[in-house]
Amino acid sequence: MKFSILKEDRSTQARLGKIETERYTSKTPVFMPVGTLGTVKALSPGELKDMGATIILGNTYHLYLRPGVKLIETLGGLHRFASWNRLILTDSGGFQVHSLNPLRKITENGVEFRSHLDGSKHFFTPEKVIEIQRILGSDFVMPLDWCVSYPATEADVEKGVELTIRWAKRSKAVLLKEHQSLFAILQGGMSERYRRQCAEELVGMGFEGYAIGGLSVGEPKSLMWEMVELSTSLLPKDKPRYLMGVGKPEDIVFSVMCGVDMFDCVLPTRCARNGLLFTSKGKLRIKNSIYKNQDFPVDEDCNCYTCRNFSRAYLRHLFVNDEILALRLNTIHNVYFYLSLMEEVRTRIADGNFERWAIRFIKEYPEMEA
Amino acid sequence: MKFSILKEDRSTQARLGKIETERYTSKTPVFMPVGTLGTVKALSPGELKDMGATIILGNTYHLYLRPGVKLIETLGGLHRFASWNRLILTDSGGFQVHSLNPLRKITENGVEFRSHLDGSKHFFTPEKVIEIQRILGSDFVMPLDWCVSYPATEADVEKGVELTIRWAKRSKAVLLKEHQSLFAILQGGMSERYRRQCAEELVGMGFEGYAIGGLSVGEPKSLMWEMVELSTSLLPKDKPRYLMGVGKPEDIVFSVMCGVDMFDCVLPTRCARNGLLFTSKGKLRIKNSIYKNQDFPVDEDCNCYTCRNFSRAYLRHLFVNDEILALRLNTIHNVYFYLSLMEEVRTRIADGNFERWAIRFIKEYPEMEA
Repeated sequence: MKFSILKEDRSTQARLGKIETERYTSKTPVFMPVGTLGTVKALSPGELKDMGATIILGNTYHLYLRPGVKLIETLGGLHRFASWNRLILTDSGGFQVHSLNPLRKITENGVEFRSHLDGSKHFFTPEKVIEIQRILGSDFVMPLDWCVSYPATEADVEKGVELTIRWAKRSKAVLLKEHQSLFAILQGGMSERYRRQCAEELVGMGFEGYAIGGLSVGEPKSLMWEMVELSTSLLPKDKPRYLMGVGKPEDIVFSVMCGVDMFDCVLPTRCARNGLLFTSKGKLRIKNSIYKNQDFPVDEDCNCYTCRNFSRAYLRHLFVNDEILALRLNTIHNVYFYLSLMEEVRTRIADGNFERWAIRFIKEYPEMEA
Repeated sequence: MKFSILKEDRSTQARLGKIETERYTSKTPVFMPVGTLGTVKALSPGELKDMGATIILGNTYHLYLRPGVKLIETLGGLHRFASWNRLILTDSGGFQVHSLNPLRKITENGVEFRSHLDGSKHFFTPEKVIEIQRILGSDFVMPLDWCVSYPATEADVEKGVELTIRWAKRSKAVLLKEHQSLFAILQGGMSERYRRQCAEELVGMGFEGYAIGGLSVGEPKSLMWEMVELSTSLLPKDKPRYLMGVGKPEDIVFSVMCGVDMFDCVLPTRCARNGLLFTSKGKLRIKNSIYKNQDFPVDEDCNCYTCRNFSRAYLRHLFVNDEILALRLNTIHNVYFYLSLMEEVRTRIADGNFERWAIRFIKEYPEMEA
């Protein structure tokens, strides 16, 4: 993997770049739609390509439980299984073990947890998690980390950081396939001291990219933003920075200003299935009766398949009647919105007029209702 | 609407034809996917076009209740609402009133029924049903008919036929839009005498096409086939014949042999959502564990998007994990199978080798398991 910075923004930390691999090249900043079980819910790989998605996310924890790693190995890896020949990033499962398993047991060697599906017992070591991702064959691999809850005691934050560092070291010793790149995950809760310590250690070991973890776990927005700004400042400039699981459109634009290059979040896909649509004029709930006879698209300025072909009235009709097509058309629209937002971000960095637009967007978008 | 017969099969009643309208031309025999609420469940109009669908069905009863006719009128008619610029056939609602409303009340003037959704009371007259379809703007319009249950007393069959005839006459007096064509619906239960009487009266009035109704209501297959053969023999050669709501692949091939030109059925779409797939080698239930690690398509000889891109193992994984994409990919495959079957039927009629193939298909397909 080769990461190049094509342009640095004059007045912010934002950068325009590209991640090149033999398989595919993605521009950055990039949004990566979440495809938990090897499918971005409701979308086909063909649609994702048409919309310009370059990297999708797969969840190691979920794929490990269903359909299982052995099966995906037999079937030639995750790209082939899911018929996706662009890039895939897999997370480490650390976050899912944290959020889906209240009864997990952490030891130096790894974490014991119970499947949220059937209660069966499993044990993840840092090595095993890398081995799973080696088999999945994802292009970007995340090591097992330890994410603390919010709020957390200093002792917990310290323990989380130390485990994350030692596990990162063990992860780095495991052989990956030629095409795979290993990232490190920065933890440290909401503590500058521990974020700093964690970053120093991880950067010292040298990884191909750095993820910022442990955010969007219930902390106030201002604190999350502070931690994003701090975290990016601690990471090397010449490696891609990936903010895990964040977030709302304004969070993403803010984080680009801080120098983040890669994003993933379930928001556009999950909201779509619940009928919440993002538009250039703000958010709208398609089931609202005011849309009942509106004979124009969700967003007049949007060029997605949904907006080019269907009215708000038709989308509302599909949604209130539980038609499967509603989930698809809504998801197409929201993912297209996120991908277009990144396109706009990249164009503005390239054109040198990013900062003013970004500040205004961050201020205005959260309040806007279409 | 102009219906032309391009070739008549030498040894069966099958015919190759085309239905031309200003909007679009469809070859016949044709299969029309069912789009109850203005959407063929799980598919986009783009996918339907890519697969070669030329006519879709809309259900007058369902569209009348949801989203309502006034709304579709405001939004420019059903084609525009659903973003479908090929052909649409709408049924009369007679069958839904029959099958969804045990408490319906039939009078000479029409039928009173309660919505299966909220119990609200409604009244359909023959004139109202045509008026609804005039507003929907469908290309092929069906008059209100009276379908009897199976088994039925002779008195009921007689009453059904007489109402159907009188209602057809009243329907014919209602003005449609220029582009719309009115069919008649042949009833008569399982009685040759009443089918014959009904056909004579309807054909005497002169309609642009003739539908065969009242079948697939619980009668044995052999009786249904007998009635299809009888019914087609009673209808004029120079008008399209439409067998309503039938059926299985072998039923369709048999009915083409009898001279039927148009078909609709929920089977390919509904079965797809339940995981039953039709293939050239027979049917398969994708959730079956034998497909768990089969790294080849549902049907190696199928050229649909699903079979070109995904393995049985992936489809099974999606289906058992309730992924929305499963419903789509299964539906794409089944609809493509039905449309391809019709393509094969047309090619064989054109090439003069239809009969032998058809007899073999009818005999072998029902027993085949892929």
